[in-house]
Amino acid sequence: MPDFDAALCPRYHRAVEIIGRRWSGSILRVMLSGATRFTDIKHAVPDLSDRMLSERLKELEAEGLVVREVTSSTPVRIDYRLTPMGEALGPALDAIGAWATRWIELPEAPAERA
Amino acid sequence: MPDFDAALCPRYHRAVEIIGRRWSGSILRVMLSGATRFTDIKHAVPDLSDRMLSERLKELEAEGLVVREVTSSTPVRIDYRLTPMGEALGPALDAIGAWATRWIELPEAPAERA
Repeated sequence: MPDFDAALCPRYHRAVEIIGRRWSGSILRVMLSGATRFTDIKHAVPDLSDRMLSERLKELEAEGLVVREVTSSTPVRIDYRLTPMGEALGPALDAIGAWATRWIELPEAPAERA
Repeated sequence: MPDFDAALCPRYHRAVEIIGRRWSGSILRVMLSGATRFTDIKHAVPDLSDRMLSERLKELEAEGLVVREVTSSTPVRIDYRLTPMGEALGPALDAIGAWATRWIELPEAPAERA
């Protein structure tokens, strides 16, 4: 049984904090699936407001996970792209997704269509 | 580029919420490393108070990740053990740890002894 690596702890704690901030995990997952536009990200995450998405994207940008790319067309096009640091979160978020699929039961099943 | 699986979203969101709650990710990691006693867990996680650890353990118990095991010796011995659901988080938390080691830089390096 390995000892807990205390030296890793502050880094790990920070990582969990970044991923775990309300909505950030879901926003990152949607972006890993290829969404780059504000409205596409917003629509893929239930109950996420414009304001909250905007705030989270700014935080993820400040943390180095996301870059905001402005294309000077008419109208101006804005894309949010994952940096290599952001892309590198893929395996961790996939592992969380796999765990969630296996273990999390939702209090009320959403309506499902066959 | 796969579409975001919207059906997974509420489960995934809940999983991120469980792991991401302040200290929970670190507490789970310490428990995955084998710590079962309150004081051992507490000492392995910097800045974690008794009160916060107690609260988090109760939440993790309510969520089915942890069981509290009482052994009627003198004095009574209490161990906190991960359930299969809790143990199953290992790969996800390891992946977060690997990402953190590679990508997270700490604002101030902690004092290190050779």
